[in-house]
Amino acid sequence: MKDRGLLIVLSGPSGVGKGTVRKAIFDNYSNEFDYSISMTTRKRREGEKEGIDYFFRTKEEFEQLIAEDGLLEYAEYVGNYYGTPLDYVNQTLDEGRDVFLEIEVQGALKVREKMPEGIFIFLSPPDLDELKSRIVNRGTDSDEMIERRMHKAVEELKLIQYYDYVVENDTVKNAARKIRNIIESEHLKVTRNLREYAEIIEEME
Amino acid sequence: MKDRGLLIVLSGPSGVGKGTVRKAIFDNYSNEFDYSISMTTRKRREGEKEGIDYFFRTKEEFEQLIAEDGLLEYAEYVGNYYGTPLDYVNQTLDEGRDVFLEIEVQGALKVREKMPEGIFIFLSPPDLDELKSRIVNRGTDSDEMIERRMHKAVEELKLIQYYDYVVENDTVKNAARKIRNIIESEHLKVTRNLREYAEIIEEME
Repeated sequence: MKDRGLLIVLSGPSGVGKGTVRKAIFDNYSNEFDYSISMTTRKRREGEKEGIDYFFRTKEEFEQLIAEDGLLEYAEYVGNYYGTPLDYVNQTLDEGRDVFLEIEVQGALKVREKMPEGIFIFLSPPDLDELKSRIVNRGTDSDEMIERRMHKAVEELKLIQYYDYVVENDTVKNAARKIRNIIESEHLKVTRNLREYAEIIEEME
Repeated sequence: MKDRGLLIVLSGPSGVGKGTVRKAIFDNYSNEFDYSISMTTRKRREGEKEGIDYFFRTKEEFEQLIAEDGLLEYAEYVGNYYGTPLDYVNQTLDEGRDVFLEIEVQGALKVREKMPEGIFIFLSPPDLDELKSRIVNRGTDSDEMIERRMHKAVEELKLIQYYDYVVENDTVKNAARKIRNIIESEHLKVTRNLREYAEIIEEME
């Protein structure tokens, strides 16, 4: 029997470059894990395939799933639902495949509630001091605007405490490599390999 | 203030190739951590330097340290003591440097008692099934010899449960790379970076 896969959740503040890093990871290590396919109620566009680009569902079906607690997380965006189907994630994990989820910080917190055993990685701006001075020194902004942006950045950074790892997005290549190494190292944890060794030991005794 | 370094303990069954893997790690990533320097009561040989090859001490000094609980672990070997001085390890860690210790399984367990916060990595034979048949199929050995070797191998493998990570020594290069990645990933844990982020957040608020 294969060990269960890992749920990898990549998140971080808006604008930090999650999508770019996720793409680099899949370009370089695509065969190592499955990307989590979202479910949506928006219309299928030409060329999009069910179960590959999205799981396409009606609004009624989606709301039924919400009622049944069948989504790891979901959100509404311009009148359509988007979410992560729990069944699909569980099935893939049961097959021993890792599932990779790239998601906003609020969604990640919801996932953490449902699957605390996941590996939660916070992608952080490369230089926090620079982030700060960038927010403050945009000459043209009103004080109110500066304060609002600073407040949002701080609120998002505070969520780091709910994550397992923090990776600075200094370069996309570096960040992708580090995230891939985190996943590899997690697989090397003794707690994930004890059963295999216990079986061998039993055979040898 | 720099965060405290990590104590990395590489161990594993006798003959698994710990020394070779440790050498590969230091050849490739030597500037990333300090190798733990042992203390010994054996005579200094020509060319050996105090504090580089060993800390050389008299038997009385060494036994004084044992009495003061000043060693992470120690053992006697052909009439001489060998051990890991606790002070040196703590000082290096306090300077923010990682300390790398390569050691037999029994010694590693003693280190774990004194420094449970260390990262304990078990280097495992590449193929346990092969290990088993290698032990059994050495044509010339007596049944008793086979049994004794099998027993020792099993006893050593059972100690895996006291470690954090298990790395198969399939190739020296692979094993060295994985161990280096484990150390890097451990440094990316949020718990080791919270203070830095808390400071930035405080400044921004």
